[in-house]
Amino acid sequence: MSQPNKPIFERPMFERIAIIGIGLIGSSLARAVREHGLAGHIAIATRSNQTLEKAEKLGLGDSYTTDAALAAADADLVVLCVPLGSIGVVGKAISGALKSGAIISDVGSSKTSVIKDLGGSLPDGVHLVPAHPVAGTEFSGPEAGYASLFDGHWCVLTPTADTNMDAVKKVRGLWEACGMKVEEMDAAHHDQVLAITSHLPQLIAYTIVGTATDMEDDSKREIMKYSAGGFRDFTRIAASDPVMWRDVCLKNKDAILDILGRFSQDLNNLQRAISNDEGDFLETMFSRTREIRSGIIEMGQDKPDIKPKDQT
Amino acid sequence: MSQPNKPIFERPMFERIAIIGIGLIGSSLARAVREHGLAGHIAIATRSNQTLEKAEKLGLGDSYTTDAALAAADADLVVLCVPLGSIGVVGKAISGALKSGAIISDVGSSKTSVIKDLGGSLPDGVHLVPAHPVAGTEFSGPEAGYASLFDGHWCVLTPTADTNMDAVKKVRGLWEACGMKVEEMDAAHHDQVLAITSHLPQLIAYTIVGTATDMEDDSKREIMKYSAGGFRDFTRIAASDPVMWRDVCLKNKDAILDILGRFSQDLNNLQRAISNDEGDFLETMFSRTREIRSGIIEMGQDKPDIKPKDQT
Repeated sequence: MSQPNKPIFERPMFERIAIIGIGLIGSSLARAVREHGLAGHIAIATRSNQTLEKAEKLGLGDSYTTDAALAAADADLVVLCVPLGSIGVVGKAISGALKSGAIISDVGSSKTSVIKDLGGSLPDGVHLVPAHPVAGTEFSGPEAGYASLFDGHWCVLTPTADTNMDAVKKVRGLWEACGMKVEEMDAAHHDQVLAITSHLPQLIAYTIVGTATDMEDDSKREIMKYSAGGFRDFTRIAASDPVMWRDVCLKNKDAILDILGRFSQDLNNLQRAISNDEGDFLETMFSRTREIRSGIIEMGQDKPDIKPKDQT
Repeated sequence: MSQPNKPIFERPMFERIAIIGIGLIGSSLARAVREHGLAGHIAIATRSNQTLEKAEKLGLGDSYTTDAALAAADADLVVLCVPLGSIGVVGKAISGALKSGAIISDVGSSKTSVIKDLGGSLPDGVHLVPAHPVAGTEFSGPEAGYASLFDGHWCVLTPTADTNMDAVKKVRGLWEACGMKVEEMDAAHHDQVLAITSHLPQLIAYTIVGTATDMEDDSKREIMKYSAGGFRDFTRIAASDPVMWRDVCLKNKDAILDILGRFSQDLNNLQRAISNDEGDFLETMFSRTREIRSGIIEMGQDKPDIKPKDQT
């Protein structure tokens, strides 16, 4: 867990950060920026009045508005923490308000779509640095965030050949100050890797819990009762934000359909092996999956995320 | 977590308990029986010398043998904690040694197969009480067990019309003393419920990790690196004992193929919806799965199993 650090810099990294969208990730970022003293002013914007009031009550920022352009005006850094489907709309809404030299970044789980959706609408002299902090929980909303959410996790930046390198350096500095390890990667490659490590597991969890949801009520009660047998883990994953995941599906469609196709094929092979009583095939299949688990443990990536009790 | 309780009875519940198979479940049972003072003598049998030595080193029982019949001789209760595929063989091996009035039970995740595999070989006067303590972790072997593994979880008994009711009562008492909530159920019904809550999630986890295992080495490294995005949870589940799960597939084949068929159909629908950009379908599908999660939390079934640090 992170301890409140002394700012690394004499002055804050950014005079003014605008955070557009104040859900799990946006509110965690606001808390981390405050905790590490990374901005002189945190401007928060979100579409709904109700969410904005929650953010204000939690004291997440220095100013609050439902007008994204107002928050973005004069900001050195604008971080879009909205679902992927809203990136283009918000980009258009704020582009006129952005000052020259401003950096615009995001936190979305698909990066080619962000470059496509924002690329056209940004004025000259504004620098786009697409980013994906790979961290999260199954909870949503401003009250779900916490400053140490990013601690020890990876953040992937996907600059293009045109991206301003100073801007990349500043966004890297932001996420490193939030405790993340930062990597740069081609956007399309990011989308393929995340389709496997994040999107496929999420969609499979939704599907498996959906299959159970279709059962009649008596069976459903029993499924909940005996869920500790393995099903429970999937229901936790499947409790994640539906709008966010709808947009991931629509925006990373090609990579997701490719990996779902491979998975379906593997599932067919499993069904065939069970149907034909192929014990050796099953034992081999169930043994070789241990290799990746060992790799994850060796890489220290096996620690679960637990929200610290003393943080709100 | 359970505290060492004073035995509820003046005398131990059983003079002699034989535990055949000393993996995660068998060794946890041995520890719980000892901790709660439920048996005068704990006889441990397992096929491999190496495992037996580990059990002896851990002090899990009062006697140790690789001869299951020797452990079962004179036992009031014999609990088979072997993979489902070995139940029939072990049943035959011990049937001649069982004393009249002895109870034979098991811990397997499929119950019709246990009744079928043991039913024919038991002598008159020996009572079969099929049981399934629904608890476990992804770890295997005698060193993986701990006494509180069963605490607060469900144990399902599947007596038939012929089953001796006193014997059922005694097996119920055993698992209740180990901290479990006990239910009785028809064996076929048990097999259907567990196919959904336990076998389907397990097989999906194996498949998803298998799909990733088939990737080339560079991708595999990246998958491990970014596994915190959701994939990691599946690798934990997919680290479970391959032989145990091979046998579950072969022994609960019909119920598993039925539920895998439903799941495949739902997965096809998801692929179609993504392919056709059906945002509303996706959002609805991802929203309704929250209902079951809420039910699980309300029923208090959402606590993860964590091995206490001070136990071995």
